[in-house]
Order: sequence, then C-alpha cells, then structure tokens
Amino acid sequence: MAKDKKMVEAITSMEEDFAQWYTDVVKKAELIDYSSVKGCMIIRPAGYAIWENIQRELDRRFKETGVENVYMPMFIPESLLEKEKDHVEGFAPEVAWVTHGGLNPLTERLCVRPTSETLFCDFYKNIIHSYRDLPKVYNQWCSVVRWEKETRPFLRSREFLWQEGHTAHATAEEAEERTVQMLNLYADFCEEVLAMPVIRGRKTEKEKFAGAEATYTIEALMHDGKALQSGTSHNFGDGFAKAFGIQFTDKDNTLRYVYQTSWGMTTRLIGAIIMVHGDDSGLVLPPRIAPVQVMVIPIQQQKEGVLEKAREVCARIGAVCRAKLDDSEKSPGWKFSEQEMRGIPLRIELGPKDIAASSCVVVRRDTGEKIQVALEELETTVPRLLDEIQRDMFARAKAHRDAHIWDARNYEEFKAIAAEKPGFIRGMWCGDRACEDKIKEETTATSRCMPFHDQEQISSTCVCCGRPAHKLVYWGKAY
Amino acid sequence: MAKDKKMVEAITSMEEDFAQWYTDVVKKAELIDYSSVKGCMIIRPAGYAIWENIQRELDRRFKETGVENVYMPMFIPESLLEKEKDHVEGFAPEVAWVTHGGLNPLTERLCVRPTSETLFCDFYKNIIHSYRDLPKVYNQWCSVVRWEKETRPFLRSREFLWQEGHTAHATAEEAEERTVQMLNLYADFCEEVLAMPVIRGRKTEKEKFAGAEATYTIEALMHDGKALQSGTSHNFGDGFAKAFGIQFTDKDNTLRYVYQTSWGMTTRLIGAIIMVHGDDSGLVLPPRIAPVQVMVIPIQQQKEGVLEKAREVCARIGAVCRAKLDDSEKSPGWKFSEQEMRGIPLRIELGPKDIAASSCVVVRRDTGEKIQVALEELETTVPRLLDEIQRDMFARAKAHRDAHIWDARNYEEFKAIAAEKPGFIRGMWCGDRACEDKIKEETTATSRCMPFHDQEQISSTCVCCGRPAHKLVYWGKAY
Repeated sequence: MAKDKKMVEAITSMEEDFAQWYTDVVKKAELIDYSSVKGCMIIRPAGYAIWENIQRELDRRFKETGVENVYMPMFIPESLLEKEKDHVEGFAPEVAWVTHGGLNPLTERLCVRPTSETLFCDFYKNIIHSYRDLPKVYNQWCSVVRWEKETRPFLRSREFLWQEGHTAHATAEEAEERTVQMLNLYADFCEEVLAMPVIRGRKTEKEKFAGAEATYTIEALMHDGKALQSGTSHNFGDGFAKAFGIQFTDKDNTLRYVYQTSWGMTTRLIGAIIMVHGDDSGLVLPPRIAPVQVMVIPIQQQKEGVLEKAREVCARIGAVCRAKLDDSEKSPGWKFSEQEMRGIPLRIELGPKDIAASSCVVVRRDTGEKIQVALEELETTVPRLLDEIQRDMFARAKAHRDAHIWDARNYEEFKAIAAEKPGFIRGMWCGDRACEDKIKEETTATSRCMPFHDQEQISSTCVCCGRPAHKLVYWGKAY
Repeated sequence: MAKDKKMVEAITSMEEDFAQWYTDVVKKAELIDYSSVKGCMIIRPAGYAIWENIQRELDRRFKETGVENVYMPMFIPESLLEKEKDHVEGFAPEVAWVTHGGLNPLTERLCVRPTSETLFCDFYKNIIHSYRDLPKVYNQWCSVVRWEKETRPFLRSREFLWQEGHTAHATAEEAEERTVQMLNLYADFCEEVLAMPVIRGRKTEKEKFAGAEATYTIEALMHDGKALQSGTSHNFGDGFAKAFGIQFTDKDNTLRYVYQTSWGMTTRLIGAIIMVHGDDSGLVLPPRIAPVQVMVIPIQQQKEGVLEKAREVCARIGAVCRAKLDDSEKSPGWKFSEQEMRGIPLRIELGPKDIAASSCVVVRRDTGEKIQVALEELETTVPRLLDEIQRDMFARAKAHRDAHIWDARNYEEFKAIAAEKPGFIRGMWCGDRACEDKIKEETTATSRCMPFHDQEQISSTCVCCGRPAHKLVYWGKAY
C-alpha cells in the first residue's frame, strides 16, 4: 500500500536542521500551539496528556516517600522576594510584575512566582514551632513565570508547568539526605519511565541555584549532542531559615534553625523526550509515558466486517494497554503517518486478508519492524512488545549518549572536541571559577555537573589552566 | 476516658456565630493558612487532598464524556480581553494587571486570567477550519485571579483553583446539549460524591455570565440557610465566535460560525462541604471525598501488643478503604478531637480490653454513634458503614434543605420570610429586571435560579409587582 507522505514531508530532517526539526515536531505532533501572548505556549491535548502521565507517575513516587501536596499563592510581594539576598539577585531580573488590582494601583507590587522558596519560608515560619512539627515535606504542582528573552516550546518559555518540592528538617544531615533522595527519584523516573539515561551530579558554585548551598542535577544528552538539565534538587542549609527566621524548639529545649531543600521538574521533560527519542518521522514516545500505546488502523474499512473486527481487537487489547481505534475517513497511509508523527509506540494494521487469516500486522514505531501476530495472541504479544520497546529505547539512548562522551586531558584537546564533536566532554577542573568562565567564553561549553558515580581521574591537571585538579566535570553545550 | 477538649473548645459554635465558626474550622482543621498576599490563601495538605479527590473524580467523569485537557497561558493581552464587549465589562474591573516583564515595561499590559474564554477563542480560531475539526471539548485545571475586595477562604479569594471547560460545536443544538450535560454532571457529582443536594436551574438575564446567552447553575443550601452557587455551565451561542471570527466550512461547503459553551467548578466546593456538613466539633467529610476515611486510634498504646495490633488492623482495612494510624504521642482524647475536627468519617478505638475480646469500637463522625465490631468483621463492616454515612449525610442535608424552602405568594409574604426564615424562597416572577433589583435592594435576596425540575406554578402573579407571572424563581441570600 502506498504510504501517504504529506505529513512526513512537511517536517525538516534532523540532520539538516535539528532546531527546525524540533519545532516541526512540536507543531505537527500537535503538542503545542503558539498563543497571542509572546513567549507563552498553549499545551494541546496530545502534549498535555504526556504531562498528565508524568504528573501521575512522579506524584505517586513522591507520595511513597511521604510528600504531601499543597497550593501556595501565585503572587509574591516584592518585600518578601527580597528577603534572601542571593535569591532575589538571581530572580528579580526575570520576573513579571503585577502593579494594578482592578482599577487601582497596588501599594506594593507583586511578582508572579518564578519559584516559591520565599512563600514556603514565610509559611514554614508560621507553622513550625517544635521538633514535633518536623520534617515538613511539601510539594506543589503549578505554573511559574520567568520573563525569558529567547523562548522555545517546552525548553524555555515565559510560563511553564512544574512541581516544586520544599522541605524543612531538624538537621543538616536529614536535609542532605532528602536532597539526594529526590535527585535519585528524578533520575530513576527518567531512566525507567522516559527511557532517558541521565548523569547524576553536583553543580559548580557558578551554576548552582540562587540561594542554595548545593545544587544537584541530572543531565541528559539530546540527539544533537547538546545537554539538557532535566531536574534539580537543592540543599539550602539554614541560609533561608536565617533570612526568614524559621526556628524550632528542639528536643533539648534549644531554639534552632531548620534546614531546607527544594527540588523541581518541569514540562521541559517533554522537550527532552522529543529530542532524545524522536526521528525524521516525528515523535517516538516511550510506551510507559505514551497516552496512547497502540493505534488500531483498519485497512479497507468500508469492507464488511473490518470495522467490527477492529473494534473488537481494540476493546480486547484495551484491557492490557492504552489502545485506540482510528476509524476516521482518512486513508490508511495518512493514518500511519499521523500515528508515526504522534509517536504512538505500536500500530496494528488489520484488513480483510488479515481477518481471514485470524492475524494482523503489528508495527513498532521505534524500529519500523513489522510483526505478523495471530489475533488470539495479541493480549500477550502487545504488552511484551511494549516492554521490549521501552527497554530498547533506553538501550539505544544510552548507547548514543555513551558514544558521545569524550575525554579531554588538556585545553587543546578540549577545544578541538568542543569544535568538532557533539556530546559531553569529561575534563578535570581545578575548582577555579575563572577556568569555567574561560571555557564558556571560548567554547560555549558549560560545566554540566561533577558526577556522583563516575569518579575516574582522567588526568591530574585542570583541562583549562593545567594546575593540579581533582574534580571531574562533565562539560557540554546546553539547552 | 476523659476527652481532651482543648481543640474543640477553641472553635465558636455554629449557632453563636456561623461566620466565625466557618473561619475557625478552616483554620483548626488545617485546611488553609493565610499568606502575606492579601486575599490569597495557602491550601494546606488536609485541604489540598480534598481538592485532589475532587479533581480525580470530576476529571474521570469529564473524560468519560470525551473531554480532553489542555493548558493555556495565564496571561491575556488587554486587546484580546476587550474583543467581546459584555465579557470585558464583566471582568475588567476585577483583574490583576502585569505591566512589567523583568526590568522593562511591557508594550501592552497583560491581565492574569480571571477566566479563559478569550484565550480559547483565539486558539479555536486557529485550529478550527472544517466540520471535521468539531466538536472541540477542551478543559483545563488551573488557577485564576479576580481582585475581590472582600475575601473569605475557599468562598471568595483573589486567587482560586478551578477547572474551566470550553467547547466549540457545529450547531446550536449540540452546544445546548453539552451545556446541560455538564450541568447535570456537576449536579450528580455534588449529590453522589459530596452528599450535597442541589437545585438545577437557569440564571436570569441579570445573573448570567458576562457574554453568555444562557447560564445554568446548581445552587446548594448551606447550614445557615444561605445559598451557594456551586457550579455553572454557560451557553454562548455564536456570540464569541462572531467577536473572534471562529468559522468553519460545513458539510454543505458553507462557512458558518461555531457555537460555544464553558463550564466551571472551583475550590469553593470545599467551602460548600464545610458549610453543608460541618458541626460544632469541626469538619464532617463525606466518605467518598475524605482523604482519610478511617483513623485507627490505639488506647494505652504503651502496653505490649497494642501498637502492633493497631498496625495490623490499619493494614488490613487499608485494603478496603483509605485508613491511617495515629501512633503519635498525644493522648487518645486529643487524637479523638483531632480526628473529629478534621472530619474523618470513622475512627476505630483499639485498646488492650478490645484486643483481648478480638473486638474494637468504631465511632461514626457524623452521628457520634459507637459500634462494637469484631476484628474479623472489620473488612466488611467498615465499607458498609462508610456507604451508610455517605447515604445518611446526603439524606440529612436534603432534609435540612427541603425544610428551608418557603413559598411566597406576594411581596408581604416574601419580605416576612426573607426577614425571619433562612433558606430558599420560591416565588413567581414576571421577568422584569426591576423586580429583581427591588427584591435585592429591599431584602438582600437574589434570584438564584429558575429551576429545571420544579415547575410548580405556586401563584399566577409576580411575587414583587403583582403582574402576571409564569416563571418560578428560587430566591435566596447568597455567599
């Protein structure tokens, strides 16, 4: 059967122009639309359903660790934002300001939250009095606003959806434990659910969150070799507690400051899914996050019995996965292209000949492989194939990532790799901010993280200045 | 056992001061806290968990009718808000305006959405071209802002959470059908899940939504006899479509305007639950919406075997309901008061004597009834009791509501009832706005709705002016 190429031809190939390919996919797969509000996107049903699945699974994992959800106001009074010095310096240049309520000017202007540390601190100050009130492990799902100059759908937009966890603890150790626990939760989620391998590590002082003592991050590699920060977890120590006066009476009757953390993941993850797994036919969704896992497409559906059988097949496999039937009036080829563009992991083709043979053709989105499956075996074959796809997608993404990690022992090597080879560059670092600045200025690569697990000392000197160095850093050009 | 009264004594009784009782309950049951942002509340875990249950159940019911979720920007450019004349007049006086992004003034100011009709229209204009693109049945869960002067937690706050559905249809009939369908979905949800009887009906011209052709509403009666509008569904006809130019090519190749609807429910429902079911010991939650349905409270938990048995019981009933164990160091009496304040439908008291008798005491929150239950029968008794409580709570709320509906045949009667008897007043209306205005001015009662089902003609003349009247109206003082 001739495949209708209209939808596919409309997207740019990845090799030709990755940025344009990305933009084509988000539009053609109907994940987003642009709005009249510059820099803000509309998340369409196909995009929002992915976010709902991300939310459901993350929220379940959060709650297993004792997280409770709350909702804080979306506005922050200017005086509250200013209470922690580093924090306000980091965020004030990029917030949106509300100056009028109804017809009247406000006596104090309010910013639309870019993040809610200050609001949680103000709240915790009121509700934490004793060690019995600790820990507080709260989270909220909401939207935040950062007035970015350059925007790209999902990756950087003036408003985005996220979750922000904010915790308060009696001891520094417990806060550190929670910071690492959430980073690991994020990493496991990315690897197990999004089939996206990540490097877990710590940010340098230069790259850490405004007001944090330490920021931990997971860094993923996109298909074009650029890095994407995919989730962060911050340990605030008692810095915010001191700025806001959050104290509790400990068991020994002493007044102490609490230790705090925060951690967040955003709709940016949808951009990561696109750029890790997508291909020239569009989106490729890992089965565990795909809103529709199997699309049943009847062939010659006008023929007697075809639609009925397709409905029956769809209902049957609907009991073991998220299945949908495309019984629209479009041609099968057009439906194939749509299913591929939308990244639906499997399609089932079912025509009169298949029905006569009590069989159907199952096509994998990730590999294009066509598999003849007896109808009676669908309920066992489909879940097995979905598991295989999930596993294979992770393995392929990991192989691609690992094939794009390069070691640099000196600055010449570093510059050559940065100029020629997309991917992560592993290089030792002396710890001096000047080297980070120089590397960024001369190569556009930034320090992504100091990895937790990969502690190999690939040389004994800083990849930039040649002085003694003990810290391994993953460098990369980043989104 | 002496009951620790501290928590209970701290709340005002309903009879003494209903408004203060309400405020006490929302604070003491830890549903909300006040924030530094005037008129905006913090929804605490106990409150947010109720909202999560409302969301989950409503969202499930929405999706069964074909609703798809999306996310629209939180900002609306002033020029977009102004496109539909009635709509902007209704909302402009109460929106918050963003005038600066980062350090720069905006070229056009943006309001924080008070509702998103204008954004959806702008979106639909771009994505609807043909009859094949219809219907669109989209919804979003988000927060909205209305700069109210007087605020009360859940009932009226400057920011609140809600869902807003926005649909577009090829015909006026289909739009009307969807408007009524969603109103009935809301009503069924309130009655089946929140155990809250509602009157379904149509708003008068005066009370309808800004820009709507018709607004349908569900009206509930609070314990103090005041009405609460609990959900609305609007039919816009093609008014917005004409203002925004949303046209499609129909099957006959003619260009036509779409017909639209919108419908919403908010965190106000939590206020309704409190005011319909609460009592002088605090919140009383209907089991179907209660985040925790059963609290297991050990008696003499320091004695050997008590905590272990309590844990075992909690785990066992945890398989058939949402159960929690209070193993904190507080006294049992204190725990009882807390469980009552928080409205947890059942508590299980379990002490050494109970354990020796393989039995426990189950106490209903709604009636205070104590029931001796054999431990081995808990898994069947608890779900049955939860069903009974749900049913009884609805029946009691309905009996209370029905006992507070009064008929007025002329204006003297109307004024006497309005002055003396809390509740709904049924009275005929001539259809003239002047009568509505007069009634409101002189009695503070407003027209709540013209009911769908109760069409009884209780007199032939307008309850206000005495002219011929055919429309029955439910009047009431409202939140």
